[in-house]
Amino acid sequence: MKHLLDYTAEVQQALEQGLPVVALESTIISHGMPYPENVQMAKEVEQVIRDNGAVPATIALMDGRIKIGLTDEDLELLATSKNVRKTSRRDLAYVLSSKEIGATTVATTMICAELAGIAVFVTGGIGGVHRGAETTMDISADLEELSQTNVAVICAGAKSILDIGLTLEYLETKGVPVVGYGTDAFPAFYSATSPFASNFRLDTPQEVADMLRVKWEMGLQGGAVIANPIPEESSLEESEITAIIEDALRQAEEQGVKGKDVTPFLLGKVKELTDGKSLEANIALVMNNARVGAAIAKAYAAN
Amino acid sequence: MKHLLDYTAEVQQALEQGLPVVALESTIISHGMPYPENVQMAKEVEQVIRDNGAVPATIALMDGRIKIGLTDEDLELLATSKNVRKTSRRDLAYVLSSKEIGATTVATTMICAELAGIAVFVTGGIGGVHRGAETTMDISADLEELSQTNVAVICAGAKSILDIGLTLEYLETKGVPVVGYGTDAFPAFYSATSPFASNFRLDTPQEVADMLRVKWEMGLQGGAVIANPIPEESSLEESEITAIIEDALRQAEEQGVKGKDVTPFLLGKVKELTDGKSLEANIALVMNNARVGAAIAKAYAAN
Amino acid sequence: MKHLLDYTAEVQQALEQGLPVVALESTIISHGMPYPENVQMAKEVEQVIRDNGAVPATIALMDGRIKIGLTDEDLELLATSKNVRKTSRRDLAYVLSSKEIGATTVATTMICAELAGIAVFVTGGIGGVHRGAETTMDISADLEELSQTNVAVICAGAKSILDIGLTLEYLETKGVPVVGYGTDAFPAFYSATSPFASNFRLDTPQEVADMLRVKWEMGLQGGAVIANPIPEESSLEESEITAIIEDALRQAEEQGVKGKDVTPFLLGKVKELTDGKSLEANIALVMNNARVGAAIAKAYAAN
Ligand SMILES: [Mn+2]
Ligand SMILES: [Mn+2]
Ligand SMILES: [Mn+2]
Repeated sequence: MKHLLDYTAEVQQALEQGLPVVALESTIISHGMPYPENVQMAKEVEQVIRDNGAVPATIALMDGRIKIGLTDEDLELLATSKNVRKTSRRDLAYVLSSKEIGATTVATTMICAELAGIAVFVTGGIGGVHRGAETTMDISADLEELSQTNVAVICAGAKSILDIGLTLEYLETKGVPVVGYGTDAFPAFYSATSPFASNFRLDTPQEVADMLRVKWEMGLQGGAVIANPIPEESSLEESEITAIIEDALRQAEEQGVKGKDVTPFLLGKVKELTDGKSLEANIALVMNNARVGAAIAKAYAAN
Repeated sequence: MKHLLDYTAEVQQALEQGLPVVALESTIISHGMPYPENVQMAKEVEQVIRDNGAVPATIALMDGRIKIGLTDEDLELLATSKNVRKTSRRDLAYVLSSKEIGATTVATTMICAELAGIAVFVTGGIGGVHRGAETTMDISADLEELSQTNVAVICAGAKSILDIGLTLEYLETKGVPVVGYGTDAFPAFYSATSPFASNFRLDTPQEVADMLRVKWEMGLQGGAVIANPIPEESSLEESEITAIIEDALRQAEEQGVKGKDVTPFLLGKVKELTDGKSLEANIALVMNNARVGAAIAKAYAAN
Repeated sequence: MKHLLDYTAEVQQALEQGLPVVALESTIISHGMPYPENVQMAKEVEQVIRDNGAVPATIALMDGRIKIGLTDEDLELLATSKNVRKTSRRDLAYVLSSKEIGATTVATTMICAELAGIAVFVTGGIGGVHRGAETTMDISADLEELSQTNVAVICAGAKSILDIGLTLEYLETKGVPVVGYGTDAFPAFYSATSPFASNFRLDTPQEVADMLRVKWEMGLQGGAVIANPIPEESSLEESEITAIIEDALRQAEEQGVKGKDVTPFLLGKVKELTDGKSLEANIALVMNNARVGAAIAKAYAAN
């Protein structure tokens, strides 16, 4: 198992010394932003984590190896290659055995982080139950992963175009803790609040670390959603962003956009309809999650 | 792990000596009945289990500890505290790390019983798939727990307001045995029969114990539903109780009752519309489950 | 655990020597065909596997024992007994503890194969999400088994009457690899193609074996669907078979066929409406799967 993992020197040293490490996904790099902005953002997130006292480990798949931490060359390759495969759990063994380049989703980053011994993972938003999943059964593998893999996911809620209520129902059925970090509400990605509540509220990194410690010591398999609201100055108005997403959904339906094309279409429309404010908000919330994730990793490592 | 558990002397001794022990949940105490009836009933159920040759272990969460068996003081505290949290799998680590008082649901009682080495658990009815879950995805975590945690749950079926057919479909998909105890039918909580069948019928505690032994020896993870029909003299007429529940559902909709308020509303209405007979039936079926559960625990311990 | 398993000499020797072994299910024998055609087909499939360099292990339940490989007497008993129970995961412990005769479904064959140390299993089609499952929640336990039990299932897709799109969504959520064997499409049982894609394509037994090896070495629990299209000369026209199945579904609805009676009704109708060509196609695809399964087992054993 371990023989499939390659660590950068920085990450390996931190893990050996029991220092705080924070995992990062790579789909945002390969599929979420154009080059070279994607490389720049990846480096900035890593730097925020270092500035807050933890070591970042961006995860990707190359040459049949799981990269735990990327060198500058790895990052450049990932950010510029044409055929990077977005790799979810079902694809992971194939991407390794075929030596394709793979970018990790939330689910796959959790799997690789657990293998590497990293307990805290920072991302923008988790996947979840898609709108209309009552009939399409389109439900992200991220939710199943959260029910079985022992990694805490620091995020600003679920990705904006999902059905938040159904996502929370699914997580409840699966027994996944949904923590409101400094809030009673479950945040809605671009806005700090939503009509939904988190399961419970924790206000400090230490409280989160204590909860995680008890969970895993008891043998309660699975991760936790640490829902960290977007900072107020970057937050979009809840009603405004809801209206924009519904408008985008309407356009997708009118134009017959279907299946795998829906999500990129919606995200493009949301960016357009917010005059680019959605992209700014996205960057702001990731940086905020990195700060909180580093603090939680520090508290957890000190336990 | 074990360091989180506190046993009463009675339970600890029984477990050390391999004597039969029956786990009991505590949500019925904190959330199911008023004080002091809840304490009285809890003690009566425990006594029925003792009278039938097993040791009762009521489970609750206090002071960051999992109580396996409650002292009189513990029970009083649980029964009278204002802020007892109904604790499902997702809340368990939090309730322990924050030292809140927690009452255990079916799911959480199963988890704690397994940790304590108790294989048999008596309750009234399991949670399941809610009516309308095709669109709401409101599905109890109890069903997932039954698919993964090695505890047999003696019950009178699923809680009365659930969708029995969908609950059985979910359990089938998850591979959970649904045993008709002395019946081919799947009982409907307040009535001994329903339009649905159990997977198979077992007629004696020994047969149940043998099935459980084979299941767990083979490594087939998960529990079993031992569906024990309410005694005939306490059973409500199937068509009558169905009509009452549907009436209650209609009233809930008309009055705009939603989300977490639906279940207590429905149970209150059912009590009202049955002139309190539903409460009597509930108590009768729990006592009956306690008798059968003790007998199964004895057979299992003797194996 | 192992004490519940009985091996034929041929299978035991092969397993001890690390030779390729292929598991086969038995529901097709007891519930899929009349006697004596069922015995004849079972022996032919076994012979195809031997001719392609692997040892067949047909699995069934008898006398409280899991039979890994059937003698001629076992096969005759299974093929002619009146009360053979179709045994899914939920029934497995009961069938063993009650000493009924049990035929194994895809789910149960996977469980028993894994217990016996067999990694490759050949069948016709997997169970999946039934048409209409958005409201009925009728979803085969095979899909959950694929998400947790480490056996590769060589098949020609999902059973023909299922909803292919929803079945693939469920498998995606659960992280199960769906491999197109020599095809980019996901085959539709009686026809080699469907409107749906496989997750990825593998063209040789060695590529499949490599992917499986990586998957299980990493600790990624669960099986894989190796979707092997029916040979062109036996393939039914996709549009034709779709129309026939929809016709059969309409007749089932008109005649009020419900629940457990639907699947046999539909299969009978499909046979009738194709003038028996569906049965021929079914046999052809199983034989083809046996050839490919034997080759994959050989490559996996040689790894
Ligand atoms: Mn999807
Ligand atoms: Mn619920
Ligand atoms: Mn079914």
